[in-house]
Amino acid sequence: MKITVYNEFIHEKEDEDVQAIYPDGIHMCLKRFLEAAGHEVRTGTLEEPECGLTKEVLDDTDVLFWWGHMRHGAVPDEVVDRVYNRVLKGMGLIVLHSGHASKIFGKLVGTDAGNLKWRQSGDMEILWAIDQGHPIMKGLGEKIVIEEEETYGEHFQIPQPDELILISWFTGGEVFRSGCVFKRGRGRIFYFRPGHESYPIYHNPQVQKLLLNAVEYVRKPECEGPYRYGHVARAIDEIAEEMKA
Amino acid sequence: MKITVYNEFIHEKEDEDVQAIYPDGIHMCLKRFLEAAGHEVRTGTLEEPECGLTKEVLDDTDVLFWWGHMRHGAVPDEVVDRVYNRVLKGMGLIVLHSGHASKIFGKLVGTDAGNLKWRQSGDMEILWAIDQGHPIMKGLGEKIVIEEEETYGEHFQIPQPDELILISWFTGGEVFRSGCVFKRGRGRIFYFRPGHESYPIYHNPQVQKLLLNAVEYVRKPECEGPYRYGHVARAIDEIAEEMKA
Amino acid sequence: MKITVYNEFIHEKEDEDVQAIYPDGIHMCLKRFLEAAGHEVRTGTLEEPECGLTKEVLDDTDVLFWWGHMRHGAVPDEVVDRVYNRVLKGMGLIVLHSGHASKIFGKLVGTDAGNLKWRQSGDMEILWAIDQGHPIMKGLGEKIVIEEEETYGEHFQIPQPDELILISWFTGGEVFRSGCVFKRGRGRIFYFRPGHESYPIYHNPQVQKLLLNAVEYVRKPECEGPYRYGHVARAIDEIAEEMKA
Amino acid sequence: MKITVYNEFIHEKEDEDVQAIYPDGIHMCLKRFLEAAGHEVRTGTLEEPECGLTKEVLDDTDVLFWWGHMRHGAVPDEVVDRVYNRVLKGMGLIVLHSGHASKIFGKLVGTDAGNLKWRQSGDMEILWAIDQGHPIMKGLGEKIVIEEEETYGEHFQIPQPDELILISWFTGGEVFRSGCVFKRGRGRIFYFRPGHESYPIYHNPQVQKLLLNAVEYVRKPECEGPYRYGHVARAIDEIAEEMKA
Repeated sequence: MKITVYNEFIHEKEDEDVQAIYPDGIHMCLKRFLEAAGHEVRTGTLEEPECGLTKEVLDDTDVLFWWGHMRHGAVPDEVVDRVYNRVLKGMGLIVLHSGHASKIFGKLVGTDAGNLKWRQSGDMEILWAIDQGHPIMKGLGEKIVIEEEETYGEHFQIPQPDELILISWFTGGEVFRSGCVFKRGRGRIFYFRPGHESYPIYHNPQVQKLLLNAVEYVRKPECEGPYRYGHVARAIDEIAEEMKA
Repeated sequence: MKITVYNEFIHEKEDEDVQAIYPDGIHMCLKRFLEAAGHEVRTGTLEEPECGLTKEVLDDTDVLFWWGHMRHGAVPDEVVDRVYNRVLKGMGLIVLHSGHASKIFGKLVGTDAGNLKWRQSGDMEILWAIDQGHPIMKGLGEKIVIEEEETYGEHFQIPQPDELILISWFTGGEVFRSGCVFKRGRGRIFYFRPGHESYPIYHNPQVQKLLLNAVEYVRKPECEGPYRYGHVARAIDEIAEEMKA
Repeated sequence: MKITVYNEFIHEKEDEDVQAIYPDGIHMCLKRFLEAAGHEVRTGTLEEPECGLTKEVLDDTDVLFWWGHMRHGAVPDEVVDRVYNRVLKGMGLIVLHSGHASKIFGKLVGTDAGNLKWRQSGDMEILWAIDQGHPIMKGLGEKIVIEEEETYGEHFQIPQPDELILISWFTGGEVFRSGCVFKRGRGRIFYFRPGHESYPIYHNPQVQKLLLNAVEYVRKPECEGPYRYGHVARAIDEIAEEMKA
Repeated sequence: MKITVYNEFIHEKEDEDVQAIYPDGIHMCLKRFLEAAGHEVRTGTLEEPECGLTKEVLDDTDVLFWWGHMRHGAVPDEVVDRVYNRVLKGMGLIVLHSGHASKIFGKLVGTDAGNLKWRQSGDMEILWAIDQGHPIMKGLGEKIVIEEEETYGEHFQIPQPDELILISWFTGGEVFRSGCVFKRGRGRIFYFRPGHESYPIYHNPQVQKLLLNAVEYVRKPECEGPYRYGHVARAIDEIAEEMKA
């Protein structure tokens, strides 16, 4: 499958602790395990022209990953619109962690999804599987434990997801809807909560397995017949003519 | 509104600690605060003929509460069927705590909803409001804290609820979908998790307020036109005749 | 309740046939039957500054109606954002007919909801009630018949609605999801399909009754406790301190 | 994949017109095109012991088809319970046409799904695809036309489906939710409306393609870790011990 990974790529250059975890950026860590699973992976970062998400790249992408945090506002609206239109046409989108506050996620879900509680206090996170038998949980158990993570807490301002797959527990008393599928047009969006830059979340083999499952789940659907929009003749008249022919 | 409270009423007679909390039964505690809010309340218990849920009683009930635990199997199938049919016709149903394993709840949701994790270890429970602005949360804050409760943990084998209103956090590491609305026919079912017999949950003013809101929310809908089922003539022919007339 | 009706108000000034049906505009027709039911109603049109939807007006509005068709693009983005933010805070929104292609509707549902089939061929429309017992159908039967209407046909590019209440049948062979509830933040959005300007749809007593029910259903929810967003201390630490106090 | 087809198999023996369409029964017609696609197919009928749905057969079945009409009541409750338990564990179930009134369908959805309108008047049926990009529509267009079919009409007493894929239009003025996915436990149930015994519906290549897609969609999910139910120790204590080890 053809995957593109967008990463803001700021923390990894400015913060030594983050650099120790992701020396060449979060996107390169994701790229490596996605490639190891046989996918073809490109990357884009904020500093590249058009964030590396040109029309050519997106038109050739089945699934797009999105990691951003500090500079959501710096992503040009035309790039956001381009991603949006591709998702409606079927491109899968996997939004990671602080990507909840990105322009593209809010535009697709229809709320101010930046609204949630957060805290960095080294809490443990336990992700419990809620949707038994969901393809995204294939080969995984009923929970994933992350010893230390940034905490997010409800209320998370999203619409009721089409599928709620994971709910997180945090030491400090919070819960969070951490694995959510939204369907928009022909596209599927998977939001996955874990992944603060200062913890080695994307090196975790269970997280990698889950994200590989997610790639399969949100991948661009295989071809179906075209949908017509706009002005149409009566369906029954068209059918009658086809029957005659 | 006309409310009926069904309570198994066994623990309160057999266990002194429970008796200390609910001297005349959980049903009487519920009855008192429901009556104080102006409702007309009847009760039924397992030992009464037909559990006190005769056709006459149910036909005159807008909302039914259900608390049971040890003897779900002893409720006669015909009583279960009677409740089921009334719910499909619009009677509201509020299933409390261990009522998740009752025959009537499983029959309405369509899964083996007895399946969940549980433990009595004096954990604290924090119920977080997930569905912002939901009528069931009217006058309440973003969370309800219960200092000590029995713990329930996911996976809870229910279908995705029509509305997920509350998610619980427990000290021991578990989460639970604690406030769920299911719609079946004209009826609304609200499942509310808290209420183990050995803690004074139904004396808690916030719990009482939430349950009073729930009563309003699941109440039998006001009259709408009848729905016809079975053999029918063509709708367009009937409409043409009505127009002539 | 305080209601504001936005109407583009172009067809009624430019087209004599439409003027015959709505001499002072669709908004005035809506205003009259809403006022007759006891509501306080203001109106806004495209030609007014800020479409009549100033901050003062919206802050004082419980439910907003939206009718537009030819000039969706002329509504300023800042007005759209203002409505959007009010809906997330709880203001109800009722989007009528060709309002499906408005900026505000697409922004809230998260798809390009302008995509659908349409045709003006004097088809009959039968709206069938799908969600039995829904408050929006109170006092109405299992269907509403409109003798002549513009036809809309699926596929309608919306996400799966939180509640699907009405499905339309058209003479020409099309079907359409004509009554849909979406929930976003604290707000409820009701999309109602009928209402082409060249037919007297909003004079129809059944349509009026349904819209009055919808007003009740999407109205701003009564006050609940505030939700905190952003950086927070550990919930369990805060709770421990409150218990001490 | 291992598929079992249950067919009541009465009409085809008692009615010459039906026999002309399905000489050896609806189940054999389904079996043939499923086998042609590479599946391993067994059949069961009402007259066989346990309807042919023994424990051995069901334990070895990935997807079960269900066609019944006249004698739903004759299917033993223990067979229904056996199917029910297998679905909760992940076996896919495809319920066809008049199977809407079967015991197993009602038990899984939680309503009296026998309630709908019907009429045999040779209406044309147009099935419109509502869920764009859904795997069940792979390789199909935006609609399927069936020249003559029995009509079903709303209201159909089912809960809101997890996924609504097809809505039917009928000549006589009715609409119907004709392709619905329900999720229960680990299982997926697909209800597909067409298939009256007196029309050659299951010989239609588009219907066959759709049913083959549905088989893939509801197939038993691949293995995920086990879910524990019942009494458990504190998750955080178990995790702490595992970390030590």
